[in-house]
Amino acid sequence: MEKVNLYHIYEREFAYKACTAVLPGCCTVTAMRREEMTESSEAVYIISAFRKREGIYAIRIMPEQTGKYHYRICLEESGEAEALTVEGKFTCTAPGDGCHGKVQMKEDGFVYADGTRFLPFGTTCYAWTHQSEELQEQTVKTLKERCFNKLRMLLFPKYMPYNEEDPAVYPFEQDEDGSWDVNRIVPAYWDNLDLRLRQLGELGIEADLILFHPYDKWGFAHLTQEASMSYVSYCIARLAAYHNVWWSLANEYEMLMDKKTEDWDAYGCLLQKEDPYRHLISIHQILQLYPKKAWMTHCSIQSGNIDLVPVWKKEYQLPVLIDECGYEGTLEYGWGNLSAFDMVDRFWWTVTRGGYCTHGETFHRGDAVLWWGKGGVLYGESEPRIRFLKELLEKLPGCGRAKVHGPHTNPNGKKGEEMTEADRHFNKLMESTPVENLMGIMAEVHKVLFTDTWQLRYYGRTCPCFTWLQLPEDGRYRIEIIDVWEMTRETVMHDAVGRTRVSLPAHPGMAVLARKEE
Amino acid sequence: MEKVNLYHIYEREFAYKACTAVLPGCCTVTAMRREEMTESSEAVYIISAFRKREGIYAIRIMPEQTGKYHYRICLEESGEAEALTVEGKFTCTAPGDGCHGKVQMKEDGFVYADGTRFLPFGTTCYAWTHQSEELQEQTVKTLKERCFNKLRMLLFPKYMPYNEEDPAVYPFEQDEDGSWDVNRIVPAYWDNLDLRLRQLGELGIEADLILFHPYDKWGFAHLTQEASMSYVSYCIARLAAYHNVWWSLANEYEMLMDKKTEDWDAYGCLLQKEDPYRHLISIHQILQLYPKKAWMTHCSIQSGNIDLVPVWKKEYQLPVLIDECGYEGTLEYGWGNLSAFDMVDRFWWTVTRGGYCTHGETFHRGDAVLWWGKGGVLYGESEPRIRFLKELLEKLPGCGRAKVHGPHTNPNGKKGEEMTEADRHFNKLMESTPVENLMGIMAEVHKVLFTDTWQLRYYGRTCPCFTWLQLPEDGRYRIEIIDVWEMTRETVMHDAVGRTRVSLPAHPGMAVLARKEE
Repeated sequence: MEKVNLYHIYEREFAYKACTAVLPGCCTVTAMRREEMTESSEAVYIISAFRKREGIYAIRIMPEQTGKYHYRICLEESGEAEALTVEGKFTCTAPGDGCHGKVQMKEDGFVYADGTRFLPFGTTCYAWTHQSEELQEQTVKTLKERCFNKLRMLLFPKYMPYNEEDPAVYPFEQDEDGSWDVNRIVPAYWDNLDLRLRQLGELGIEADLILFHPYDKWGFAHLTQEASMSYVSYCIARLAAYHNVWWSLANEYEMLMDKKTEDWDAYGCLLQKEDPYRHLISIHQILQLYPKKAWMTHCSIQSGNIDLVPVWKKEYQLPVLIDECGYEGTLEYGWGNLSAFDMVDRFWWTVTRGGYCTHGETFHRGDAVLWWGKGGVLYGESEPRIRFLKELLEKLPGCGRAKVHGPHTNPNGKKGEEMTEADRHFNKLMESTPVENLMGIMAEVHKVLFTDTWQLRYYGRTCPCFTWLQLPEDGRYRIEIIDVWEMTRETVMHDAVGRTRVSLPAHPGMAVLARKEE
Repeated sequence: MEKVNLYHIYEREFAYKACTAVLPGCCTVTAMRREEMTESSEAVYIISAFRKREGIYAIRIMPEQTGKYHYRICLEESGEAEALTVEGKFTCTAPGDGCHGKVQMKEDGFVYADGTRFLPFGTTCYAWTHQSEELQEQTVKTLKERCFNKLRMLLFPKYMPYNEEDPAVYPFEQDEDGSWDVNRIVPAYWDNLDLRLRQLGELGIEADLILFHPYDKWGFAHLTQEASMSYVSYCIARLAAYHNVWWSLANEYEMLMDKKTEDWDAYGCLLQKEDPYRHLISIHQILQLYPKKAWMTHCSIQSGNIDLVPVWKKEYQLPVLIDECGYEGTLEYGWGNLSAFDMVDRFWWTVTRGGYCTHGETFHRGDAVLWWGKGGVLYGESEPRIRFLKELLEKLPGCGRAKVHGPHTNPNGKKGEEMTEADRHFNKLMESTPVENLMGIMAEVHKVLFTDTWQLRYYGRTCPCFTWLQLPEDGRYRIEIIDVWEMTRETVMHDAVGRTRVSLPAHPGMAVLARKEE
């Protein structure tokens, strides 16, 4: 029997003639595991077949348990199509290649299917799959060498400054009137997308697939709602079997002027209903966050106002990804000219306020090959520092479940008897102040991520020459001073207990890690 | 006849015995100008006398017009005091010493009495008049050498970290039960205050006198409302005649736990009613801005959220001073550890968002002599850069009346036919977004101050390698690139018209000035 590694794709093609690109729910997948399947075996997945090329459809299955699987594709006679039944079996074996399966939301963070935690450190190459093969390969090579484990990317081509070329292939054929026929898919486009998703999966990179975006001159932003729904169904049927797929309904949803608020909800519900693997789903805004819906698995936010992360977490009761907070670069646009230090600062700031951050790079170039738009190579200085942070966090036990202070927490952190009447008064005052009005006022909101055994404090652009840590009395702590730019870690103290004074070098970009001694 | 320079103090002492420190409204001042005064001459000022030392009261007059003045002090018999009438005359002559008189609010900025515009560039030495004479003199010397033209200072002594000493003298005597008797003033305290206000006046520095503050261990924050009102009356009677006095009701009013919202209003109304010169009046908050009142002449705001300046200007219809946005230094507290660059950045940022900014310095020192608390000398690097900005602005015609974009203005600045449908859609979206939520999201909110003949754009921490200016078509402009840290100005273009591309060095701290060629 054919063997498939756990979390990898089993694909079966079959010949069929129909007029739609998707054959909804035609395939039932049952698992046999230890016993033989009987007629009464429960379906593991109900999936749709998708058109792969002229006259050929396929189903794809991502097995999530080891064991034996059986599938049955049943198609009734319909129009020019004859009735058809296709059956098959395969065995799913342990992955062996270090693949951890799909990423899922858990509490206020993420874990892979096998329980390994996932800390997102994303980057952005919106239109990389619409570039020349050479450039796409260069992007893959760069991603292999760099630290990012998530990639924000568009399915439709992108039209805006620095992205003005037509792509070589489009996802669909055009009708005579120039409108896109979502049922007549262009195999070359989707085959290339398959290749790229597979490559990303092999590199351990989650593909945050953006289904719709407004930066368009070809009409993809103006598909009818019916066509949009068909396109989303096709994406599910074809792409959901990639363990590393995430669904991002939109980049800047409010800028898609044809779409109504409920249209977005329809895509979210469709994904939630039809994606048998329930991959992560989010929607990204330019100004106004989309209201919370049951299909949302996390917030994907555009903002440089990172102090609000705890506010969004509280409001949505979901993990928060700052998927756009400006890009390292030198563009004439405010969203694309962060210094490398500020890009790094925003990662540390986001993480120590309880969120996750996404990178992008936009150095102005005459050839307009900017990483953020087209991929290629990275020129900036932030990525090694982001890697430094990522590796630091990955080695901290329980990091994906670490806590941060709420938006109204007085960061001075005095408790009980230490508190004066003025402290209590100030705390009450804070609680009655809209949190938006605390931003910037509370310059002293230190950024702190903590568990029972460690705390990581980030001092941002401030320059204290010393700091006070409030360490538990029931343990002894080792204190490290971290320079986020120089990427140095220096242990300055052992066996610290309780209120502890730590000298700092009084320049921007410092952090302190206190870990319980073993 | 005695001569007094315009805007300077005429003082007349007289012996009198009363039990209160203020003799309310006892003195009528009339002006003669060209003709002799007649009985029907209209009063210019009604003023109060104040206790100067045991058995001696005084009145002070600040003449605001040249010419002859007459005053009459009438006191009826009351308790142990006998009836008394004191009359006198003096001539007010042109100042000759460059004194411009009191600062007044005008439109959304400030002008001196003689019409010269005033651009506030303040600093902060809260408790400087409570230090040793030597240290006070050192502070005066420093102020003389530095650029600041406004000083935030407390009348009551300050108790908080780095400010833990008792002052040598207090403003009042204590009763046997330890409570302060606001009628028994301590001449040494007030005489010293007189000296310091005079010195500041000679240096062209406005004294932003903070009447109440919460950082207290002696009980001044807990005066009864009646005592507080008497104290404010005394301040008016004694200090209002200084042309360089501003009234700041509080530092962090909400932290004065004894005082109710209406108590503050009472002080404001009292000042508005009794101060014959109507000096500027503001109130400073820690978290929640005090509601607008008729006595307010400007907003005195604590915040690092400087993008909100246009919001506050719109809401209060008053000039906005960011009187506390963090201090340059190295303290363990978030409010006192800005880098020098960030201090300078906040000045540029505030100014190009339409407000004015205030400096302070808090480098940690073993001797606890920090400029912000005690004065002394400055160690930081921001002041020369603040001077550079001040001198640049002072030479720009009409600077005090320059405009900025509103909080909801799309900074890309396209107009009319240039605007695409997406631009219009985005503008509508912005207008329907609470401005608080635009902060940080709109990283591209360039900071721009402009008049009909020039525009000054500040790029903050962003790093564009070029920028587009939208210059009027009806003039030709000279373009300068300004490095706010290096303090350099380089003319890079002449005769620029309309949409103009300007190359920039792609690092933080750049500004561009476009001036109409003459």
